[in-house]
Amino acid sequence: MADKSETARRFIETRARLNSNVDKANNFLVKRFYNIDHNTYLEGIVPAKYKELMGLVASTCLRCDDCIYYHIIQSYRLGVTRVEQEEAINVALVVGGSIVIPHMRRAYELLTELYG
Amino acid sequence: MADKSETARRFIETRARLNSNVDKANNFLVKRFYNIDHNTYLEGIVPAKYKELMGLVASTCLRCDDCIYYHIIQSYRLGVTRVEQEEAINVALVVGGSIVIPHMRRAYELLTELYG
Amino acid sequence: MADKSETARRFIETRARLNSNVDKANNFLVKRFYNIDHNTYLEGIVPAKYKELMGLVASTCLRCDDCIYYHIIQSYRLGVTRVEQEEAINVALVVGGSIVIPHMRRAYELLTELYG
Amino acid sequence: MADKSETARRFIETRARLNSNVDKANNFLVKRFYNIDHNTYLEGIVPAKYKELMGLVASTCLRCDDCIYYHIIQSYRLGVTRVEQEEAINVALVVGGSIVIPHMRRAYELLTELYG
Amino acid sequence: MADKSETARRFIETRARLNSNVDKANNFLVKRFYNIDHNTYLEGIVPAKYKELMGLVASTCLRCDDCIYYHIIQSYRLGVTRVEQEEAINVALVVGGSIVIPHMRRAYELLTELYG
Amino acid sequence: MADKSETARRFIETRARLNSNVDKANNFLVKRFYNIDHNTYLEGIVPAKYKELMGLVASTCLRCDDCIYYHIIQSYRLGVTRVEQEEAINVALVVGGSIVIPHMRRAYELLTELYG
Repeated sequence: MADKSETARRFIETRARLNSNVDKANNFLVKRFYNIDHNTYLEGIVPAKYKELMGLVASTCLRCDDCIYYHIIQSYRLGVTRVEQEEAINVALVVGGSIVIPHMRRAYELLTELYG
Repeated sequence: MADKSETARRFIETRARLNSNVDKANNFLVKRFYNIDHNTYLEGIVPAKYKELMGLVASTCLRCDDCIYYHIIQSYRLGVTRVEQEEAINVALVVGGSIVIPHMRRAYELLTELYG
Repeated sequence: MADKSETARRFIETRARLNSNVDKANNFLVKRFYNIDHNTYLEGIVPAKYKELMGLVASTCLRCDDCIYYHIIQSYRLGVTRVEQEEAINVALVVGGSIVIPHMRRAYELLTELYG
Repeated sequence: MADKSETARRFIETRARLNSNVDKANNFLVKRFYNIDHNTYLEGIVPAKYKELMGLVASTCLRCDDCIYYHIIQSYRLGVTRVEQEEAINVALVVGGSIVIPHMRRAYELLTELYG
Repeated sequence: MADKSETARRFIETRARLNSNVDKANNFLVKRFYNIDHNTYLEGIVPAKYKELMGLVASTCLRCDDCIYYHIIQSYRLGVTRVEQEEAINVALVVGGSIVIPHMRRAYELLTELYG
Repeated sequence: MADKSETARRFIETRARLNSNVDKANNFLVKRFYNIDHNTYLEGIVPAKYKELMGLVASTCLRCDDCIYYHIIQSYRLGVTRVEQEEAINVALVVGGSIVIPHMRRAYELLTELYG
């Protein structure tokens, strides 16, 4: 994927570099939180791909670019199509309003890089 | 449904009463916005039930009780199970943090009334 | 005005009762903040009525019912018309999204009581 | 404490009633989250009373009445004085702005009931 | 204007580049939303220039740099003076608190470039 | 400190440069606000170091990188240890949820640079 999208490549690299600082700190509560966070998106009665899209909706209406990139990439890895990603972003746009648009623009750039 | 849940009955009644004021005002932009809002949750490539659950996730992490009640009720009407609703709320809880908990508590009260 | 609108009467009464606790506490920083807050809405190059409407926009997109009621009432006192109030609320609706709607509904109830 | 403050009594009672629904649901992720939440405020290098006040600051600037009541009550139980509580609320007021004021008013009502 | 302000030039260029991705996607709901968004700021009973300043207030208290830049530039194009822009930002600062300050600093940089 | 941390050096420099624009504008309300902001963190019944950590909690759960950097640096100057900073950030993480994590990662980078 990193070969398709420069945005994804840079995001993944920076995230890994910054996470290594967090890992070294070895903070007990942070590790517990990361663990819960990981479990939240596992396959359940709701399929994992819809959970990732729910994460995308939450990230978009709360307006966090890093979180948006993360869930777009995870959804992409799970085989989610571009249209599905757009429909999820639409929910966030309508719930969250025009303040979401600058983040949506950057999300669409990543979508275009990933899906061509 | 209103016979099962006092919370749902009161919410639906108050919402209808307040919406009648909005309807009477006949504000063009508001009507356009309501129209877009309605279209956002229609069956698409993403099934309507998952769109409602995405609306629930957005409403929960943005912490709006009325919106949470609305999407729980809509999801219920579309046949979403209680476990599916809980899994969606979990995404919102983890993304949005403990500040979400008081709203989650009220959501669970409605879930208990609806699903017994 | 309180004779026209039950919502306004109750809001003003509760606000006064709660503010008396704050006043008794005599907290220096709080009094300074209240002072700045008061000065922000005074007639300037921007007329006071548009500042109140700006306060209404901010309160609506940040979704605080008490603040919305306050700025609707202040705008009403300054002779702002209902249509002007609705146009300000529209800005907040579009910027803030559908999560604003439940607050808009309650705002329209107050507008209807005040303007008939 | 419940004998001193009607606000505290009602809050604690409602919270317990609603939490019983959550407990019955026995949702694994929610229980894990509650567990982390509990551990966050335990005595550490930062004394428990300052952690509760930090929780109060977070709750106040994120504007959640239930969370504000909870941390005021917990701080009170740990021997925090009224002035300390007010200083914490001041941080939240200045960081979060006038949108915080309606919540601050309700916080001061509880402070007045608890500390006389 | 782009000749006066490097910040404005870069913002407008990046926005246009990113918007072209969104346009190519041709998403129906996004286009509808853009259309409503456009109509919100048209001359009404409230003059267009005050609507742009309301958009600036909303963008500033919701803390979105791109939206702040956009509404400062639109206001500038409509003949709004620097003092009017500052008075609008003051409303957002007082409502939104010190968390707004970093965005206000960047807004003042753009104001200085535009108005000299 | 600037010799230890490149992140701190760049932040302090940019902040000073941008603040000079604000200072030149000489806006009365902004100056009053800055004054209140300054007074909020002075030694009180709550020690200054805990007030800075409260500022860090507020900044982290409201997700403002500049504000986070500022309060980490101020806390560092007042002799706060790294573990105390991490415990404060934990409160913000649990209250604010996983949406806080990207900001926490950047905070940990600064902590690592400052404390080695």
